Amino acid sequence: MKQTFQDIILKLQTFWSERGCVLWQPYYTQVGAGTMNPATFLRVLGPEPWNVAYVEPSVRPDDGRYGENPNRFQMHYQFQVILKPDPGNPQEVYLDSLKAIGIDPRQHDIRFVEDNWEQPAISAWGLGWEVWLDGQEITQFTYFQQVGGLPLDPVAVEITYGLERILIALNNAKAIWDEEWAPGVTYGEVRRQEEREHSKYYFEVANVQAMREVFDRYEHEANVCLDQGLVVPAHDYVLKCSHIFNTLDTRGAIGVTERQAFFRRMRELARRVAEAYLEQRKVLEYPLLKETIRETRNSKIELSDLELPKPSSFLFEIGTEELPAGDVETALTQLREKVPSLLKELSLEHGLVRSFATPRRLVVSIADLSPRQPNREELVKGPPASKAFDKDGKATQAGLGFAKKNGIEPSTLEVREQDGGKYVFANVKQKGRTTPEVLAEALPALVANIKFDKTMRWLPRDTGSDTNVVFSRPIRWFVSLLGDKVIPFEYAGLIPGKVSRGLRPYDSPEITIPSADQYFDLIKNSGIILDTEERKKLIVEQVRQASATVKGEAILDEDLLIEVADLIEKPTSVLGSFDKEYLSLPREVLISVMKKHQRYFPIADPGSGKLLPYFIAIRNGDDQYLDIVKEGNEHVLGARFADADFFVRADLKHKLEEFRPKLNTLIFQTKLGSMLDKSERILKLVKDLVPMLGLGDAERSSVERAAYLAKADLMTQMVTEMTSLQGIIGREYALRSGEKQEVAEAIGEQYQPVPRSKIGLAVALADRIDSLVGLFAAGLAPTGAKDPFALRRAALGVVQPLIEKNLSFDLRLAVRQALKLQPVGVKEEVQAQVLDFITGRLSVVLKESGCKYDVVDAVLAEQSDDPARAAEAVKQLQAWVQREDWSTILPAFARCVRITRDQKKTFKVDIKNFAEKQEEALFKALEKAESASRSTGSIDDLLTAFVPMIPAVNVFFDKVLVMADDKALRENRLALLQRISEMAKGVVNLSKLEGF
Amino acid sequence: MKQTFQDIILKLQTFWSERGCVLWQPYYTQVGAGTMNPATFLRVLGPEPWNVAYVEPSVRPDDGRYGENPNRFQMHYQFQVILKPDPGNPQEVYLDSLKAIGIDPRQHDIRFVEDNWEQPAISAWGLGWEVWLDGQEITQFTYFQQVGGLPLDPVAVEITYGLERILIALNNAKAIWDEEWAPGVTYGEVRRQEEREHSKYYFEVANVQAMREVFDRYEHEANVCLDQGLVVPAHDYVLKCSHIFNTLDTRGAIGVTERQAFFRRMRELARRVAEAYLEQRKVLEYPLLKETIRETRNSKIELSDLELPKPSSFLFEIGTEELPAGDVETALTQLREKVPSLLKELSLEHGLVRSFATPRRLVVSIADLSPRQPNREELVKGPPASKAFDKDGKATQAGLGFAKKNGIEPSTLEVREQDGGKYVFANVKQKGRTTPEVLAEALPALVANIKFDKTMRWLPRDTGSDTNVVFSRPIRWFVSLLGDKVIPFEYAGLIPGKVSRGLRPYDSPEITIPSADQYFDLIKNSGIILDTEERKKLIVEQVRQASATVKGEAILDEDLLIEVADLIEKPTSVLGSFDKEYLSLPREVLISVMKKHQRYFPIADPGSGKLLPYFIAIRNGDDQYLDIVKEGNEHVLGARFADADFFVRADLKHKLEEFRPKLNTLIFQTKLGSMLDKSERILKLVKDLVPMLGLGDAERSSVERAAYLAKADLMTQMVTEMTSLQGIIGREYALRSGEKQEVAEAIGEQYQPVPRSKIGLAVALADRIDSLVGLFAAGLAPTGAKDPFALRRAALGVVQPLIEKNLSFDLRLAVRQALKLQPVGVKEEVQAQVLDFITGRLSVVLKESGCKYDVVDAVLAEQSDDPARAAEAVKQLQAWVQREDWSTILPAFARCVRITRDQKKTFKVDIKNFAEKQEEALFKALEKAESASRSTGSIDDLLTAFVPMIPAVNVFFDKVLVMADDKALRENRLALLQRISEMAKGVVNLSKLEGF
Repeated sequence: MKQTFQDIILKLQTFWSERGCVLWQPYYTQVGAGTMNPATFLRVLGPEPWNVAYVEPSVRPDDGRYGENPNRFQMHYQFQVILKPDPGNPQEVYLDSLKAIGIDPRQHDIRFVEDNWEQPAISAWGLGWEVWLDGQEITQFTYFQQVGGLPLDPVAVEITYGLERILIALNNAKAIWDEEWAPGVTYGEVRRQEEREHSKYYFEVANVQAMREVFDRYEHEANVCLDQGLVVPAHDYVLKCSHIFNTLDTRGAIGVTERQAFFRRMRELARRVAEAYLEQRKVLEYPLLKETIRETRNSKIELSDLELPKPSSFLFEIGTEELPAGDVETALTQLREKVPSLLKELSLEHGLVRSFATPRRLVVSIADLSPRQPNREELVKGPPASKAFDKDGKATQAGLGFAKKNGIEPSTLEVREQDGGKYVFANVKQKGRTTPEVLAEALPALVANIKFDKTMRWLPRDTGSDTNVVFSRPIRWFVSLLGDKVIPFEYAGLIPGKVSRGLRPYDSPEITIPSADQYFDLIKNSGIILDTEERKKLIVEQVRQASATVKGEAILDEDLLIEVADLIEKPTSVLGSFDKEYLSLPREVLISVMKKHQRYFPIADPGSGKLLPYFIAIRNGDDQYLDIVKEGNEHVLGARFADADFFVRADLKHKLEEFRPKLNTLIFQTKLGSMLDKSERILKLVKDLVPMLGLGDAERSSVERAAYLAKADLMTQMVTEMTSLQGIIGREYALRSGEKQEVAEAIGEQYQPVPRSKIGLAVALADRIDSLVGLFAAGLAPTGAKDPFALRRAALGVVQPLIEKNLSFDLRLAVRQALKLQPVGVKEEVQAQVLDFITGRLSVVLKESGCKYDVVDAVLAEQSDDPARAAEAVKQLQAWVQREDWSTILPAFARCVRITRDQKKTFKVDIKNFAEKQEEALFKALEKAESASRSTGSIDDLLTAFVPMIPAVNVFFDKVLVMADDKALRENRLALLQRISEMAKGVVNLSKLEGF
Repeated sequence: MKQTFQDIILKLQTFWSERGCVLWQPYYTQVGAGTMNPATFLRVLGPEPWNVAYVEPSVRPDDGRYGENPNRFQMHYQFQVILKPDPGNPQEVYLDSLKAIGIDPRQHDIRFVEDNWEQPAISAWGLGWEVWLDGQEITQFTYFQQVGGLPLDPVAVEITYGLERILIALNNAKAIWDEEWAPGVTYGEVRRQEEREHSKYYFEVANVQAMREVFDRYEHEANVCLDQGLVVPAHDYVLKCSHIFNTLDTRGAIGVTERQAFFRRMRELARRVAEAYLEQRKVLEYPLLKETIRETRNSKIELSDLELPKPSSFLFEIGTEELPAGDVETALTQLREKVPSLLKELSLEHGLVRSFATPRRLVVSIADLSPRQPNREELVKGPPASKAFDKDGKATQAGLGFAKKNGIEPSTLEVREQDGGKYVFANVKQKGRTTPEVLAEALPALVANIKFDKTMRWLPRDTGSDTNVVFSRPIRWFVSLLGDKVIPFEYAGLIPGKVSRGLRPYDSPEITIPSADQYFDLIKNSGIILDTEERKKLIVEQVRQASATVKGEAILDEDLLIEVADLIEKPTSVLGSFDKEYLSLPREVLISVMKKHQRYFPIADPGSGKLLPYFIAIRNGDDQYLDIVKEGNEHVLGARFADADFFVRADLKHKLEEFRPKLNTLIFQTKLGSMLDKSERILKLVKDLVPMLGLGDAERSSVERAAYLAKADLMTQMVTEMTSLQGIIGREYALRSGEKQEVAEAIGEQYQPVPRSKIGLAVALADRIDSLVGLFAAGLAPTGAKDPFALRRAALGVVQPLIEKNLSFDLRLAVRQALKLQPVGVKEEVQAQVLDFITGRLSVVLKESGCKYDVVDAVLAEQSDDPARAAEAVKQLQAWVQREDWSTILPAFARCVRITRDQKKTFKVDIKNFAEKQEEALFKALEKAESASRSTGSIDDLLTAFVPMIPAVNVFFDKVLVMADDKALRENRLALLQRISEMAKGVVNLSKLEGF
């Protein structure tokens, strides 16, 4: 029985209404998502509870596909749910809602796939998942952490269903268009024509100038509303600004750097709105904050009768909502480190310690854990004996106090000698505590000490727990069993029990664990593979088998394998296919979609290496209803490829160079002009770089052609859609447009940190140096932690390839040339600022590559304009400072420097003024060294030349008084030492070295 | 059990979904009503069926009340339903939907109150009703006739529920705020703060200049979209323009005339959108026009066995959806005229004929209707005898043909003489047809011939009937019984039967009428009062009784009584009360709200005449659950008074004159400045008018004060809300601000067609003349049928009072003075244009008052600048032309005029050139007449002076050859006649008269 679109909506409305949600309506302004509706954006702020559900037609102009894509549209329908605070089981309620609309999780592959949701335009973020139904994202599930720049307390759960995708999945359809909206009326009949029109409008027609003006007006209006305390009217204008921005963006009218400025403006407005709302609710005294009575949990913990007679197994399970794959690994690594050291610290004897991790659970198992700590004795030092006892050997007040403090009889105090004095000592006997007592204290701390890159809060305010408890995802249960006893504690609003949960696809059934020893069998019986390595092995086996059935070989990327293994608790492979015609798409596009978007293993022909029209997905669960899962995944991939195909076909109606002129619609930065302007500058700059990189006339034309075309792919639809394919698409289209191979490759390499070819490097350097110079000149240098234009990365991209390729390059000259090309007035100091900034990155690179910081500083103080040379110098100096005789070399040179460095004047050596023979000897040694070191100016040359001088230097200082009273003598000696110091000029500043 | 807001929505969604509607969503742009959603605005166009239901948050800025009004908000929620085509019983389905949400029509007073819905901004209109629940409008129910300037075919039924009001009624609440939206969350908690904010924004904060600019941008964008065939994107911008217009309007930034310009722009856009959509659907071949199979109705009519043996009663009932009160009367009047004459025409003998009308039925009853027409003979004239018979007296082809055509034997042809020739004649015997046959033909025509001011179409396309059938409201059944036989026919998709319908509040139960004689008893038993007079009598009795119980006397306005009597079929009075504190509101406001808005009878104290805090409503139905009805009506009135009170209280914080400066925000017309500018012009002009109207210095200060304050009330909130109270509120507030009585009265009179006082007249004239002169000068004179600024009415308002009060007034001078005050450059010809235009209205006034058109033309051709004088002259001339001797007077004068009027030159009489004594005699008579007529220049003077000349004129022409060969003689004679003609100059142009 096929479902209709409106049925799903009615069922969801009914479902959530019955679960206490306010049924709300779509907003009366175009929004990109239900999140923007004030029923979410505003109501999630502050302490008041709020449960709401509503449909939201979500307008995303750049998703327009002229009605040609099966499930991608400029407008789609979201069903938005907010649960605030977290009800404790939002995932389970959500899965119930899927059942209510006819999706039986048992028949599908439902997955909670990590998603770090972020909406910079409104300064909002949260952690959660995309929910996948057979590979199709059908829901976003997020624990909001921040909105409008303000932390949420309590956190709100946001569930956003994608209604079209759900209908497609439910009806097992290929596309939305022919599915019924209502009986007898299809979705396409209701909406398709409009899709065509709006796509055309947003991509081709919208008036850029007018929209910019309206944005300004509305931004101003929002601010005026805020000045008057009008929160919702202000918010309305923020939303309108946001939609106008999206329109401009889709029209291709907003450049990379301009985008930042727009975001900043919208973020600032969103922040003001959020703050004003919060303030307003406070003044209104939080009307929705009605008294709620929460059952008081019996958290009294009885530890006294928990002592076990003998060593027992201990089992600790932290049950969580689906952890991100990376966090599964992180947590496992930490447990494997922390648990043994914890046991040691707690003085608990134990047998084998094992840790496991899956997306739903972190497990620690300890064999033969001692029932209690051993008793201990300790000698505690007290006051001097003379003070603790009176002349009669009777304990004084001080003595008695010390005994009491340590809980011993005064008579047992001992006097011992220490450090030449006599003191009283107490021999304190500590009784070991029982293991349950110790663990009840230690386990919460253990959990709290597991660190993740990104953590979230989720606890409501009224649990009695600290709402600031954080974890990777919410913790939902603890099992902590010593033998058959529960070790009790309270953490994150939970107390442990004996109940674990089974596989998600089986509805997470409760699994009661009678005792620690039975855990592994019970878990295994429930189908869960605890061990990551075992899951990986199973996946590899299944993938091999499956690909063999189509005579292919899966592309088994290790990173992907680990990720997939950490996305599931029970792997079952699903072999799917896709339409052969998509094989004509660029290979990178296909692989990128399969691996990155879908976590599928692509399959290639083992002979030719060419892709085959198959893929392998890994399902979480067993092999029941595998056909449904397969079909679903095939539809999803088909739709994604259709999407890519749409773009590539549209793009390939033009040659790559035809896209270039359109770069003038893409603003790079207001002061620095369009991307076309930038592209022209790159072309000019690259001409200067050709000889500097040692490229000949043979390569010149390819360099220039590559530079000419470098940015053109930014205007293609494929890159507009998947920005990560910039360069890759340029390369591909260049080839298809008949460009030379080396030109195409260079275009592809320009975004690589280290371009492979010199031609690619030339283009990349021109691009990066132009950005650095231009943005510095425009006053947009990074400040503090902020680096909105990624200039640090640009600088890194300048120095790293030069070092790796060991290419000598005159940065100073390149920067000077780039400066001449900028359209803004350039201040004197910009050149120095840019070079300093690049030197800063160079320093970081070198230090991070293992060089000693003082060595790097010493070299860069004298030479940084040629990164490859500087790196070489650092390497040489590093070797010198590790030499055994370094302790004679450095001091000798240092003596010469130290005595002369405060001289204001530079003197000249006059051999006529030599008074001692040591002076003359030193001078000769110097002349010899100078002629040797000058040849290349390298560290090795310098120091190799200096080493023979060392005896002369040392003798000179021993025998000659530099600071002679006679001015002529003194100055001549100083001149001699200044010349020695001077040898290092432009090579190294040895005074930066340790031990100087 | 109280209901929640969201429950109602869910129930309505479920109800309409089950009845085949597409469930749609609110639109993503602020709209004033669900009608603007493309699911209505576009989908109602063209032939495709479309059934849809959706919630629409409807934003109407000027309804904002800062959250203080119980059921008036800047945003309310509509539930919108479109049924296209008309399902045949939309009212009944609608009433079922009320039951579905818990409203039992039996317990309430549900009324379908005429509503001629019109939305000029989108060139849309339709006929239907407001549905009242206990006096509260809860739904708009409209048969759309036109949208975007295009006629709808088929017509669509629009049902628009007001959800807040329904909830208030359902929960018997006073206001919406404390009612639950969802369990535990009130409507107020969800929306009240936002109401406050948006009210403030729209009334006080919105940036007028910015919004104007955005309007322009968006209008342009809409047009660009249309040029590209992008219908929905264009429509989106139309909606945005519309909302911006509403914002500007609420901000008080749009003047009367500017409003027209805005509407024109929006209408033009809407028209383009509608046309583009229709064209697009045509190109797409109407995808939703799926084949529908409609049960074929057995429309074969068997008339043969219907003849009755003897005269019988005939009963004809036209069952309709609720007719507007006015149409009930109109139809009744027509039936009473048409039916008897129809019977006569049909030669049907009959007894008593009676007609009745209620909102649900038009009834014709004929007693003793003959079973058939009498037989008739007719002599039909044929060809000349000579052609019909040959020499032998045998019928020729022509003769045979004629006989055949008339269905007689050739042998029966007769030859008769006529007009001096001989012709053949056929003696045709017509057998009278049976009454059923005759009626089956005549009744559809009778129905079709009932005319209404406004009619509507409603028939779907596939009934086989003409979809262009029109009526006041849809006809839903016919009862047509001759005795116990149904007289069959087909009209408007219906065939008659024996089934009538009972009272709407009893669910319109079917009433089977076995025979015509039983009709009246059955109808009476069902509670329906057929006779309007009887209904009126019952109402008057009940109203008297009810008002007596509170010692008051109802204000029984006859118009209201008739209207109320025609709104119901069974009257039951309901006495309600309202809060005494509202009695402090201006009396006009109270009465206006009660009578005009609610159709209540106000109650006054019989002694003082002051209003009492009571009202009487007339319910349709019996007295069950009367308390519910009473409470409902009280709530409604309370809310309306609260609304008025809100405005008046806010207004009365200021004196009337304090509103005047704000007139500068109200644009009168772009070129003519603000209403403040206009107000200043009125003040200046009125100073000139004081002496012209014969007002003395005593009145001067009051005139000027009244002129100064005249327009101030336009800026009060009360007038902004109820424009019809302009002047009335000015008067009221003037009194409360301490102005003199006569000043206040003048302010009140300025909008009356004929102001009572001269002071009021002075202000009114200044206002009207300023408008005429200004708008003509601005190039905005009315063209053709278009008179957007109501300048015809303004001109009428100038001439009518002057005539009625018989005040001499120099229009030419007044116009000249007014012209000097205009801020626009004035072209020479404007003065003449304005005066011509006023003369045009003067002419209409005089002709409509019964004066002969030629008389009016004759007078106005010579004098029109002083309307009162001109009217007087017309009256005199009218008397003259009716004199018996007029046939001697006019020709005599005419002879003088006719012979001279083509002369290019004016000659001078020279007595020396008289040749005949008749010349001299005529000259003497002329000189005498001239001196008599010159005294006042009236018609009477002129003609009284001329009459004695007549003999001299006649003799002159008999004896004297005017056109003598001698030039001197000839010119002297012409000069004499020219001077006679000249006597009428400035008085009358007699050549315009009939018989000249």
